[in-house]
Amino acid sequence: MLSFGQYSEDGDWVEHTAESVIAAGRTTFQSYLFFRSPVHGVCVALDGDIQSCEADEAIYHEALVHPAMLVHPDPRRVLIMGGGEGATAREVLRHPGVTRVVMVDMDAEFVELCRTHLAGWNAGAFADPRLDVQCRDINEFLDEPGEGFDVVIGDLVDFNDPDDPAAALYSRQLYERLRRRLNPGAITATQAGGLTTGRTAAHAHVRATLDAAFTNVSSYGIVVPSFYHLWSYVLASDERLPDVDALPMERFAQRATARRLALPATGPASLAATFALPVSIYEKLQKPAT
Amino acid sequence: MLSFGQYSEDGDWVEHTAESVIAAGRTTFQSYLFFRSPVHGVCVALDGDIQSCEADEAIYHEALVHPAMLVHPDPRRVLIMGGGEGATAREVLRHPGVTRVVMVDMDAEFVELCRTHLAGWNAGAFADPRLDVQCRDINEFLDEPGEGFDVVIGDLVDFNDPDDPAAALYSRQLYERLRRRLNPGAITATQAGGLTTGRTAAHAHVRATLDAAFTNVSSYGIVVPSFYHLWSYVLASDERLPDVDALPMERFAQRATARRLALPATGPASLAATFALPVSIYEKLQKPAT
Amino acid sequence: MLSFGQYSEDGDWVEHTAESVIAAGRTTFQSYLFFRSPVHGVCVALDGDIQSCEADEAIYHEALVHPAMLVHPDPRRVLIMGGGEGATAREVLRHPGVTRVVMVDMDAEFVELCRTHLAGWNAGAFADPRLDVQCRDINEFLDEPGEGFDVVIGDLVDFNDPDDPAAALYSRQLYERLRRRLNPGAITATQAGGLTTGRTAAHAHVRATLDAAFTNVSSYGIVVPSFYHLWSYVLASDERLPDVDALPMERFAQRATARRLALPATGPASLAATFALPVSIYEKLQKPAT
Amino acid sequence: MLSFGQYSEDGDWVEHTAESVIAAGRTTFQSYLFFRSPVHGVCVALDGDIQSCEADEAIYHEALVHPAMLVHPDPRRVLIMGGGEGATAREVLRHPGVTRVVMVDMDAEFVELCRTHLAGWNAGAFADPRLDVQCRDINEFLDEPGEGFDVVIGDLVDFNDPDDPAAALYSRQLYERLRRRLNPGAITATQAGGLTTGRTAAHAHVRATLDAAFTNVSSYGIVVPSFYHLWSYVLASDERLPDVDALPMERFAQRATARRLALPATGPASLAATFALPVSIYEKLQKPAT
Repeated sequence: MLSFGQYSEDGDWVEHTAESVIAAGRTTFQSYLFFRSPVHGVCVALDGDIQSCEADEAIYHEALVHPAMLVHPDPRRVLIMGGGEGATAREVLRHPGVTRVVMVDMDAEFVELCRTHLAGWNAGAFADPRLDVQCRDINEFLDEPGEGFDVVIGDLVDFNDPDDPAAALYSRQLYERLRRRLNPGAITATQAGGLTTGRTAAHAHVRATLDAAFTNVSSYGIVVPSFYHLWSYVLASDERLPDVDALPMERFAQRATARRLALPATGPASLAATFALPVSIYEKLQKPAT
Repeated sequence: MLSFGQYSEDGDWVEHTAESVIAAGRTTFQSYLFFRSPVHGVCVALDGDIQSCEADEAIYHEALVHPAMLVHPDPRRVLIMGGGEGATAREVLRHPGVTRVVMVDMDAEFVELCRTHLAGWNAGAFADPRLDVQCRDINEFLDEPGEGFDVVIGDLVDFNDPDDPAAALYSRQLYERLRRRLNPGAITATQAGGLTTGRTAAHAHVRATLDAAFTNVSSYGIVVPSFYHLWSYVLASDERLPDVDALPMERFAQRATARRLALPATGPASLAATFALPVSIYEKLQKPAT
Repeated sequence: MLSFGQYSEDGDWVEHTAESVIAAGRTTFQSYLFFRSPVHGVCVALDGDIQSCEADEAIYHEALVHPAMLVHPDPRRVLIMGGGEGATAREVLRHPGVTRVVMVDMDAEFVELCRTHLAGWNAGAFADPRLDVQCRDINEFLDEPGEGFDVVIGDLVDFNDPDDPAAALYSRQLYERLRRRLNPGAITATQAGGLTTGRTAAHAHVRATLDAAFTNVSSYGIVVPSFYHLWSYVLASDERLPDVDALPMERFAQRATARRLALPATGPASLAATFALPVSIYEKLQKPAT
Repeated sequence: MLSFGQYSEDGDWVEHTAESVIAAGRTTFQSYLFFRSPVHGVCVALDGDIQSCEADEAIYHEALVHPAMLVHPDPRRVLIMGGGEGATAREVLRHPGVTRVVMVDMDAEFVELCRTHLAGWNAGAFADPRLDVQCRDINEFLDEPGEGFDVVIGDLVDFNDPDDPAAALYSRQLYERLRRRLNPGAITATQAGGLTTGRTAAHAHVRATLDAAFTNVSSYGIVVPSFYHLWSYVLASDERLPDVDALPMERFAQRATARRLALPATGPASLAATFALPVSIYEKLQKPAT
């Protein structure tokens, strides 16, 4: 029996049964594995960490994209940092007011692999004329002068400890650079890793980083079954953001309706409720790490 | 390295590292294992399934007990079906209006083991004069004429398939018997197993069973990190219940305040938000199984 | 981390780390997986059981082929039952007196996969004009009148319990058919599965089957590291065979020298010593199963 | 399901199912775990490595003790280095000419645990008046002037890499000290870890160490099923020793008979044959490591 195992967010061992391997190898930047699970469908792992699984990637991607897009009254120009699978772009492009999406992912080979092996998953996003895919370093991109964005979505690989090299993707320098490319009223969202009672350091690090760059930050999370954990995200803006005391139930429902948004995996109520984290977890997020 | 492994709700394999074994053996009814995890603290397993772990048992038990108790305007008499660990009783007894709690758990040996090994966990509940522990079959108890209850909490072992013997604890017969012992306006809550995108049959079975006995049912769920899944519950009553379109945010907050309830693991907002399940999961719960 | 796990011969769980997957799929008859282990090199599994690994397949194949070939004073015509990987043929063809080898393996697709992915492994055997590969059912082949053989090597998939369908490949019927195709003085050898202190049933079944068809049988075994066990074989003949009280040390050495046989993985002394099984295991092989 | 996992000698992962835990904790020197496997019976692990299992400890201990004892024409005084379980002493004491056995094991608490939990295993050895158990450091013991020994058995914990602290138990210093306490014609045997095609470094290190202190060394190995590997040993002496070209078949059989030795797990032929290692493994042992 073939299986794919990894340590969970809190240090136990989780194995996904693998029916078959679709593609495996290394790009210039990372090792990749596309396999088929009898439970979760096609799964994608990078450097030994599951990134997304067919059966519930829509939960992950809807929760990543739509809170930021629904908080913003009229998002037109959107920047995606990372997002190689194409599913983040797919969700962004569902908002009819969007006129331009720039997706900056360093790994052209991985983007190509996703285009080939995850076609049902990108659902035509790569062919949408509004999408501009740039395979380059995000810091380089942000340093150039250029257009501003209304919403920025961070779909970069996650890290387990603040010492992990991938933590650089969640640094103050990057977010300071990012500020220069934001339109007034911009909303930024980023995934922030698995979140458990015992391991809150990674999320707290991301939150503290964004907190240094923006007036307001807000944490939220949703269960992605194939990740075996609550998956967490951070919203940041100089505008007011939803939080545990002000779940944006009606706003999300109204704007989703107005934009004729299908949210087939989550729904507006479920997305609004993601901001009500259990207090025993929420309390640990205020300060960086334990 | 010692570890405790079990298939997750959806068929993958999850291993908890075990630092040491505190107690292991068999009672008349089931095998038990109390072990210490470096991640989750003391963990309790019955017949090979984790029941609770020290680090987050409060999330599981608060979510099991308080929605029903907060929906009811004045719960005084409470029945707990199962609940051997004593933590369900602990949560019930926090509501100051409660005058009597009957806990019916078939397995006297397991209750005694929990009293010994989980003392911090029951937190004195077994010594509370309002608690009456009866170690006997729940069906037998319900068949006798006797006092009525305002709230009933089902904290019985879970099952994976409707064919599993433990499924009898979630049968229509049991709930028909239960109805005879309910006071007007009674609220019933039961745990209903792990809930994932792919495996919804166990929850749907519990929900359908309660749906046959009560006018209204409502599903909700919360992440218990050591269970590696969304954990689900069903509320049932002839009264109106919270649901995804009517999260009881204010009611839960007001009643928690009025009753001076500490909800240190979850909080009223988080408990109210548990009713907003992702639609891709929620839709599958309406009908029994797939 | 990708890994390939299977229950060991005695019921524990063994996982081979998999660096990459070379080929995976199903033929008409069985599922196959060719993967690369950092420890054992290329590994081949059929229906979830490891068949051979690059790092030590030579130990398995030398031990399968050479005792029978060295017991026989002048083996010319050899039949291989199974042997899809081509390495059994490779070993047989090393004996310079061999003029014809018929290899009967049912699964043409698997033979083709081995020709492609295990080229270093067959080492040109498939190109040797003395080898005649016939992809068909072994029973059918044996039923036809035809040439006789001096040595027969059984390299068929193994089975764990006498109830397993693969046990038919080790049936009395098959060996009665086989007798009709044997030359006088013929020696038969077959692999007979993993052999441990606790699990001797599979080997005992094979031994009993051959014992019913031949005057003499002899059990032997060698450690194949990647199999995590003593691997066992049975020799059968109407001639006298080596056994624990008469290790053929000198005969094997002399004949290997005379035939200029390289036995790079095992050596003649090690092959002769394989007949000295520990008595606690040997005693259990005399009667079919426990 | 509770299980005990460890990396195998060559880096794969092997899990023993654990039915129950008999004792677990730490002594001053090491962590211990006594558990029951449905396959191997009671198993003992120290610092995360299996030491012995009830079902086949006799194979391990007979192979450790009897080759040295049978090579020596008249062993009377025997030193055991380590051997806390008491089974090595049990085997030594079976030789009727033995008048005195000194067992030096540093860990008094572990020896006591074995006396309690492995009583069937020591089989009364600890009560034999010929046995003198000294719980102290072996270097200290050897530094003192004192009696000489005919046979020395090393049953110390094994190590995986020459850098491992336990490698000090296999150092030249220790064997130089040991020489001062040897009677003329003395034979030394030590266990030397698991031995696989890919991992020969630990054995080669032990062999090289003994080679520096003695005129002759000889490697041998036997399968201990619960160790999932060929288990290896080294004999050392200034006398002539058995080797792959001179298996001591008759000598072992004659001396076992003369001493009325039961060798119920292995037998004299099987012990003699352990010196015929496969050449692909044997060749790698001559030089320290790869």
